[in-house]
Amino acid sequence: MADTPITIALDAMGGDHGVSVAMRGAARLSCEESDVRTLCVGDVEAMQAVLDEVPHDPSRLVLAPARGAVPMDAKPSAALGQLPDCSILTACRLVSDGAADAVVSAGHTGATVLAAARHFSRLPGIRRAALASVYPTAGARGPHDDPFALMLDVGATLDASAEDLVGFAVMGSAYSSVISEVARPRVALLSNGTEANKGTPEIVAAHRLLSAGGLEFVGNVEGLDIPKGTVDVVVCGGFLGNVVLKMLEGMGDVLRTLTEEASSRSLQWRLALSMLEGGLSEIDRLTDWEAYGGAPLLGLDHPVIKAHGRSQARAIRNACKVAAKTVRGDLVGRIRQGVEAMPALTGDAA
Amino acid sequence: MADTPITIALDAMGGDHGVSVAMRGAARLSCEESDVRTLCVGDVEAMQAVLDEVPHDPSRLVLAPARGAVPMDAKPSAALGQLPDCSILTACRLVSDGAADAVVSAGHTGATVLAAARHFSRLPGIRRAALASVYPTAGARGPHDDPFALMLDVGATLDASAEDLVGFAVMGSAYSSVISEVARPRVALLSNGTEANKGTPEIVAAHRLLSAGGLEFVGNVEGLDIPKGTVDVVVCGGFLGNVVLKMLEGMGDVLRTLTEEASSRSLQWRLALSMLEGGLSEIDRLTDWEAYGGAPLLGLDHPVIKAHGRSQARAIRNACKVAAKTVRGDLVGRIRQGVEAMPALTGDAA
Repeated sequence: MADTPITIALDAMGGDHGVSVAMRGAARLSCEESDVRTLCVGDVEAMQAVLDEVPHDPSRLVLAPARGAVPMDAKPSAALGQLPDCSILTACRLVSDGAADAVVSAGHTGATVLAAARHFSRLPGIRRAALASVYPTAGARGPHDDPFALMLDVGATLDASAEDLVGFAVMGSAYSSVISEVARPRVALLSNGTEANKGTPEIVAAHRLLSAGGLEFVGNVEGLDIPKGTVDVVVCGGFLGNVVLKMLEGMGDVLRTLTEEASSRSLQWRLALSMLEGGLSEIDRLTDWEAYGGAPLLGLDHPVIKAHGRSQARAIRNACKVAAKTVRGDLVGRIRQGVEAMPALTGDAA
Repeated sequence: MADTPITIALDAMGGDHGVSVAMRGAARLSCEESDVRTLCVGDVEAMQAVLDEVPHDPSRLVLAPARGAVPMDAKPSAALGQLPDCSILTACRLVSDGAADAVVSAGHTGATVLAAARHFSRLPGIRRAALASVYPTAGARGPHDDPFALMLDVGATLDASAEDLVGFAVMGSAYSSVISEVARPRVALLSNGTEANKGTPEIVAAHRLLSAGGLEFVGNVEGLDIPKGTVDVVVCGGFLGNVVLKMLEGMGDVLRTLTEEASSRSLQWRLALSMLEGGLSEIDRLTDWEAYGGAPLLGLDHPVIKAHGRSQARAIRNACKVAAKTVRGDLVGRIRQGVEAMPALTGDAA
């Protein structure tokens, strides 16, 4: 399986914590994974300065120069126009030129999506790329008892059509099968009721199209099913997905704050918390987005993993591992196959 | 303040647990609140049979006969057609006739909304009634350090217009000020970004209308702000509200399951949990919908409180107390005033 090494182009300048954290993530990965190379894209001196301070395997790291990086608060299209050789554009260019297999960035989400759209092609039959998010649930699935499920689109698609939703379902199913190793991922539409006629007209139409076959489509799920992890892939429009995803993040923050406050309040509580560590690590695991390594941008001819802006080195390392897994599992090929098996999409693709 | 007693019409046959739980709730309330009367509507023999078994104050309870009740899984309009004297229709009729001040039901949500729409009038300027839900947050607000916030619509309004959203904002603000006793509740639109131009066209237009004044409008909030409790009133369309609300419920269920599993696993964990009781009751309080007594249906000329179908006696008692508070605080008058102060709504009302 791991004959030829896989090369990941890492935008080493992106993210809230910049080059220092990105390069520490790459360094850590280089010591662990023998079949992954990281092509670190950014300011070469700054990247090397970080490497000089941390253990790393130089045979698994390559540095590629770029000029500038998109600031986290920039208007993406204007910034990309002003910075034609910035780290994210250069990383995407290196992938489209064949120097690397996939892109990872913790930088500006909008700029990452735009840069990828500029250098990569949309797959046939896919009308809209989607940003997906892996999120933790109370369920367990797949050969590894994986508690994670996938939700998409969580990007900015305000007005997903029925065909867009079908495309999201196909891409989500392919990603879930590659990453969680679930053979036939259970896919559902997120709606305000489980009946086939519940939801907006787009959801009702997508329900009909998905019922015609091609995927393990189980119908509609409700908000209740998101934390429970009833299904492997939750499909929704980007507006709803954005609200739901941020709410999950907010829940995690609230729980962590409550736990920290509790532990600072008294010795008895600190003791109790330490006795409970298994149980609390369960909750922690359920709300620890760093563990699951980023949000894939799906629908293009190369894999793109968008790590959280707040990512620390561990999250960057995990995002690169996930990117390598999408290459190893031929995510792009699986999405192509999924489109071909879905009548609602092949009509458009013809 | 409590000169004339307030009378609540209770649909005593509704809810998953039926007459037994509803009447136990009413009985409990009768022993506690001297200025509230409960007009219990349903099968008189069945209601009396429950009262015979529990402590109650007969001077604060009246039984009114009704024939039949809408089953929890019925199609609401068909059921109301077949059962013209069922408990929910009779309860609403008694309120519109002046025999009671507000309605409480734990029965079928759709049937409750339809029965209320049949017997009550929409307030001038309000184009659509909304179902609101009080939900627990990590914040604290008002004179009682109340951790609850309000979200609306959580009903089935799939296509809320900008004016509908403005109406929801006015009604939510009035309800929050009456129930949480916050003088100027902070109201926000739920969107996929805090900027004024983020969201669907309806949300962007509502943002503009609400910015013109009349309420303590603080702009858009994101999913993150829902559990944090950044604002007192979160305004959204019914489809989004439904998904979010059910997700909050699902989160509560998941946390309770984790805690129960933890406590059953070992003596050490049971001990640790008991040492932590304050901290866990915090989480419990955050996810205990029984404490906050039901969802108001807003926009009609009489208050309606829809208690959760799963309600136990305590939740029914709380819903009746909330209903009494809406009467005492003149919720309906406050909504009228709010509409008059809102230019976007008075144009329609003229």
